Amino acid sequence: MRTRPLKVALLGCGVVGSEVARIMTTHADDLAARIGAPVELAGIAVRRPDKVRDGIPAELVTTDATALVKRGDIDVVIEVIGGIEPARTLITTAFEHGASVVSANKALVAADGAALHAAAQRHGADLYYEAAVAGAIPLVRPLRESLAGDKVNRVLGIVNGTTNFILDKMDSSGAGYSEALDEATALGYAEADPTADVEGFDAAAKAAILAGIAFHTRVTIDDVHREGLTEVTAADIASAKRMGCTVKLLAICERAADGASVTARVHPAMIPLSHPLASVREAYNAVFVESDAAGQLMFYGPGAGGSPTASAVLGDLVAVCRNKLAGATGPGESAYTRLPVSPMGDVVTRYHISLDVADKSGVLAQVATVFAEHGVSIDTVRQQGKDGEASLVVVTHRAADAALSSTVGALRELDTVRGVASIMRVEGE
Amino acid sequence: MRTRPLKVALLGCGVVGSEVARIMTTHADDLAARIGAPVELAGIAVRRPDKVRDGIPAELVTTDATALVKRGDIDVVIEVIGGIEPARTLITTAFEHGASVVSANKALVAADGAALHAAAQRHGADLYYEAAVAGAIPLVRPLRESLAGDKVNRVLGIVNGTTNFILDKMDSSGAGYSEALDEATALGYAEADPTADVEGFDAAAKAAILAGIAFHTRVTIDDVHREGLTEVTAADIASAKRMGCTVKLLAICERAADGASVTARVHPAMIPLSHPLASVREAYNAVFVESDAAGQLMFYGPGAGGSPTASAVLGDLVAVCRNKLAGATGPGESAYTRLPVSPMGDVVTRYHISLDVADKSGVLAQVATVFAEHGVSIDTVRQQGKDGEASLVVVTHRAADAALSSTVGALRELDTVRGVASIMRVEGE
Repeated sequence: MRTRPLKVALLGCGVVGSEVARIMTTHADDLAARIGAPVELAGIAVRRPDKVRDGIPAELVTTDATALVKRGDIDVVIEVIGGIEPARTLITTAFEHGASVVSANKALVAADGAALHAAAQRHGADLYYEAAVAGAIPLVRPLRESLAGDKVNRVLGIVNGTTNFILDKMDSSGAGYSEALDEATALGYAEADPTADVEGFDAAAKAAILAGIAFHTRVTIDDVHREGLTEVTAADIASAKRMGCTVKLLAICERAADGASVTARVHPAMIPLSHPLASVREAYNAVFVESDAAGQLMFYGPGAGGSPTASAVLGDLVAVCRNKLAGATGPGESAYTRLPVSPMGDVVTRYHISLDVADKSGVLAQVATVFAEHGVSIDTVRQQGKDGEASLVVVTHRAADAALSSTVGALRELDTVRGVASIMRVEGE
Repeated sequence: MRTRPLKVALLGCGVVGSEVARIMTTHADDLAARIGAPVELAGIAVRRPDKVRDGIPAELVTTDATALVKRGDIDVVIEVIGGIEPARTLITTAFEHGASVVSANKALVAADGAALHAAAQRHGADLYYEAAVAGAIPLVRPLRESLAGDKVNRVLGIVNGTTNFILDKMDSSGAGYSEALDEATALGYAEADPTADVEGFDAAAKAAILAGIAFHTRVTIDDVHREGLTEVTAADIASAKRMGCTVKLLAICERAADGASVTARVHPAMIPLSHPLASVREAYNAVFVESDAAGQLMFYGPGAGGSPTASAVLGDLVAVCRNKLAGATGPGESAYTRLPVSPMGDVVTRYHISLDVADKSGVLAQVATVFAEHGVSIDTVRQQGKDGEASLVVVTHRAADAALSSTVGALRELDTVRGVASIMRVEGE
């Protein structure tokens, strides 16, 4: 074993960073044995040194992250700051100064992964980011390496723990969205400003990363169709239950049937209770991968949290350090297929539509005509009448989202349709 | 991209080998793009050339496997023959002639992995074997690389599809073992000689490989305690159901609580229906991994079959080829902890014991005394009487297997105990 240590700079020392620092200290011998050389924490850049946690060596702490990555003796930079800047500039500077980078930054990789990969390659460095998608769950490496000899056609998963916690509470207790969000906040599963989670930005960033790796193409967060779960009501959940379904916020990346394009989207959807994703509870994540040769694979585990995310960061650290010692780099960006990303309208899906209608004869015929005119085939219809009011619940067969969407538009125009109570896609069948 | 192709020799062209050859041909462009150089199938060694399948280029087929691996221009040897010899000699010869090796051979790696890894290292070659454990499910790479910065404490899984199919049939239809085995054979899930599957040899080989990688130590198949499922009865399954459990053949690798030793075992066990492994149906595999930082992870997918196994082989092929081009090797054996493997008696587990007893007062007191004398604490007891006969179903708290086993021995000696109807361990809680 080499005795001269590899030097690691840690950018950020919050929930994840402090756990990374702790494990690097307590498990130093194991890391050294697995890497083939000791690793030394050479500096920790923080914004507020007064907030640094117990157990973090004070002499390593600096507020000057730029100077740290420019030192020139740093082998690996671990970036757990998050956000676009200053993370992007720091990572680029790290590459320029000979360091490889391990990042947990989904927003940055989803926004600018291609440029970062290019910078890494230019400088003969590694860029690893297992922790950016689904926390501790090995997903980037299995897609990038284990399935490198296969053709992935679909990635479908629960990749945001906060929203899964909220939907799970709504499902188990009948609570409304606000009530479930309050509970998630109180328990620390949701941040004070939950926008990134509940509006689907976090999941969309992960979908972009997964789609890019799975289909060997470039997908950025701007390519991902995104709907959050703020519109999901207790009535939607109840309606899903009547259908033998539950509601999950899904990230879905698909290769088109003709193989010539891909799609990536995040939205709430009903999935059958028999689907393995339906039983993913609380803040857990799970991702289904469908490929030509392997068939259906599922990966399940904690999608967030300091300790699970640190596990993924440290796995990458070991790999990047091994590569350094071997004088090699691991797999870089693989985007050779250059497949275009199609808009949401081209996605083939099914709709569950609940309509408030006039309680008179002929309504179903009118509604059915609208579906037929738009080329959308109906799977099931359920009619319910009460006190002069009536509701129609329609579940369609598979059709292009654009056709389904314009069907709903046309239904709204019907005199006999008083309102569209809910629309939700049905997936996982 | 390099234009000179990497040359691949394929040893074996059965269900897996022919699928590997097919995908290498049909997906040649994708493989080249992902590797950075084309890969060329340079030769296929088979035992019976008359049985070679359609679509396999006849000019590549040879019966002289030794000459093929000795050619000197082979970059990677894919070994999908199985068994100990001639596979071992061929792999060793391949290393000596400069080739890296991708193998799907669980029996050989479990019997002799250390020697093979040493030979690979001596010759600067890679030895990869993702396909040896749980077919298409990425498991070796996640354990060896993704969790390389974490401390794995437990691996618990269903790693044999044939036995899971049999137990699933017994559970869903109430069939006995023989009947379910017949169905598995008729459907092609069990081989004509099912010994390796039903006696647990296949699962034990996988357990040895998983334990070695997970705990960074050496575990061979001889270290694995092994019980097959031939003794599992319809009554056992019914009894499990009454407890809210199902029966699975589990491979369990654990680090002892004091961290100073490990255990590895394969046996049927009752697990609660609420456990994610309980819902693994038919011939699917699933493996739980518990580690300090990541927490609980699960990996699920098809555990066998030509196409899923080929997916794993080809993922390894891409990795090994990339390493070749980079002039580096991937992670080799990591066995630095040198942890001893403890015998089954040291394993801490729970027993479900069903006793046929005399239907008279005082029996429960006698039985309870025996448990107490052996230091085994009882969790629940259920008494059932019918026509002068009675049964006692006891579920214990956790205790060392040796204590549980000698408790059962002492129970058999009691006059009032007419027989031990069934004993099964309870896991997954």
